[in-house]
Amino acid sequence: MKIAIDAMGGDYAPLSVLEGTAEALSCYDGFNVILVGNLPEMKPIVEKLGLDRNPRVEFAHAEQVVKMDESSVVAIRAKKDSSITVAATLVGKGKADALVTVGHTGAAVTATIVRMRTLPGVERPAIAVLMPSKDRKVVMLDAGATVDCKPEHLAQFAVMGSIYSRLILGIENPSIGIMSNGDEDIKGTDLTKGAFKLISKMPVNFMGNIEGSDIFNDVVDVVVCDGFVGNAILKSCEGISKSAMHWLKTAFTKNPFRLTTAILAQGAFQELKEMSSGEEYGGAPLLGINGIVIKGHGSSSPRAVRNAIRVAADLVTKRMNEQILAKLQESNALLKTTTK
Amino acid sequence: MKIAIDAMGGDYAPLSVLEGTAEALSCYDGFNVILVGNLPEMKPIVEKLGLDRNPRVEFAHAEQVVKMDESSVVAIRAKKDSSITVAATLVGKGKADALVTVGHTGAAVTATIVRMRTLPGVERPAIAVLMPSKDRKVVMLDAGATVDCKPEHLAQFAVMGSIYSRLILGIENPSIGIMSNGDEDIKGTDLTKGAFKLISKMPVNFMGNIEGSDIFNDVVDVVVCDGFVGNAILKSCEGISKSAMHWLKTAFTKNPFRLTTAILAQGAFQELKEMSSGEEYGGAPLLGINGIVIKGHGSSSPRAVRNAIRVAADLVTKRMNEQILAKLQESNALLKTTTK
Repeated sequence: MKIAIDAMGGDYAPLSVLEGTAEALSCYDGFNVILVGNLPEMKPIVEKLGLDRNPRVEFAHAEQVVKMDESSVVAIRAKKDSSITVAATLVGKGKADALVTVGHTGAAVTATIVRMRTLPGVERPAIAVLMPSKDRKVVMLDAGATVDCKPEHLAQFAVMGSIYSRLILGIENPSIGIMSNGDEDIKGTDLTKGAFKLISKMPVNFMGNIEGSDIFNDVVDVVVCDGFVGNAILKSCEGISKSAMHWLKTAFTKNPFRLTTAILAQGAFQELKEMSSGEEYGGAPLLGINGIVIKGHGSSSPRAVRNAIRVAADLVTKRMNEQILAKLQESNALLKTTTK
Repeated sequence: MKIAIDAMGGDYAPLSVLEGTAEALSCYDGFNVILVGNLPEMKPIVEKLGLDRNPRVEFAHAEQVVKMDESSVVAIRAKKDSSITVAATLVGKGKADALVTVGHTGAAVTATIVRMRTLPGVERPAIAVLMPSKDRKVVMLDAGATVDCKPEHLAQFAVMGSIYSRLILGIENPSIGIMSNGDEDIKGTDLTKGAFKLISKMPVNFMGNIEGSDIFNDVVDVVVCDGFVGNAILKSCEGISKSAMHWLKTAFTKNPFRLTTAILAQGAFQELKEMSSGEEYGGAPLLGINGIVIKGHGSSSPRAVRNAIRVAADLVTKRMNEQILAKLQESNALLKTTTK
């Protein structure tokens, strides 16, 4: 198994990505990597980390990089030789089995659609993120790959999210909810109402509509929504979590007494941080693409990169896409039967 | 000035609403109230609080109440004599100047549209909530009144939100952002792109697109979105905040040592709770309705009810709706000129 790694994408690339790759290689077996990026620029770090002397490492040169603040469509068109495009091409041509990137999300979506194509029968990809519910992780998709969705897309997201939940979290028959503006069946937009009808007929554990607060109430295992709504929820939750840490810090540093208690309570704060961080899983898969793609946060630490690589290898081994295709065929057959 | 109060709506009604009303009457001057609800049911509490002997209190009987888990449209049609409908009718007929409710949101929206109508020229109402940004409050609208929006609706929300921000938070020229899936101008859906074009031409302090995390980054004063997206963001943020408090509690009660530090740090936790609570403003106005309507959280405490009543009286005194109408006329005139 070979994993193509976009070494140049992300806020702290290439350093953070290369360090994470080195960690992954020393922690896990069963795969090789192809480091894709500007080789002269990567050279000093590669040598320092001994990656050039590691038999499990290959290199592929890419002259350009899509910067985090560029427009993805423009960048992918203009930069044919960017690290993300070269990495996606390697997987598209069968020279690698999976792709890991912590770079520009839009560029990753565009490059993988163009160079790797979607799975047969899948119209649109979805980014599946893990949200921290009270006592479990909840899969939410789409978190931003497909902004304008049709009901059929959400129905496919339900199947893909359900498979991913089982493979990554070990949940045997994940329960699925549609993000709506209330949990009654009649709630929602034309999009969610259409998806409700479709998903009701499918061979998944469908619980109906949920609302935003239910993501964190241990109500369902998989939350389905369009990429605009999912992105708004994800970013808002990231935002308010940062604000909460800011207020906590302000409250605890107000006077020396409180500051002392804060220092005493460091372990508790560390646990809180771990609880809400996504580092354990390292990134979010781009589901529906013909090949395993893991997209990590732009600010990924080496540890997050290491885990993203582990997850990519794991999903290749578990043949996630074959399972998605089989379940989609089963669903389509059922949908056709019931609509006859 | 008379404020009609839906005494029966909400999780802890009528007790919490009546206690909050009694507090408001003893704290603030300049208005009378009409308590609307099932009078026999309210009687013991009314007498205990001395509301029946207060010359500033009138009563209006309503036989029914819309329960929190009912479908709003069905409930409003079937229950013509519900407390929310009777209260909205009082304002609609000019017998009261404002309405305060902590009951069913959908029922409040439907009842006020039907019984009070929207402001001339305003097509759809919006619920404006205050989100806790790092060091300020941000107005986000719509938080759930209008699920299917057109660009013109979002443009009107921008005007209404801007007036509300000035009146409630004292911000002279509030900056406005459109909730999108990235802050570049080209990002968004057909709806947000259409709204972008309209709001660019209007006499407001428009900053362009923002994304979810920017709500909490002190980037803008007013965030505009459709009611589906706004509701999803609001409920998700409420959900993750509750989860965070749960994790914090778990982390701090793990061992006796940590528990001791938690007790020592009580003041800090209290401040954190205050920071994120909406009690200070007591509720969210339903903007665009022909009359002042304040909708408080279903679980409002007496203190939240008291503040909702104070805010309602304040917005009547400041003639919010006249200011909204004037600004909308100015905007419409400008839009017509520039599109010629």
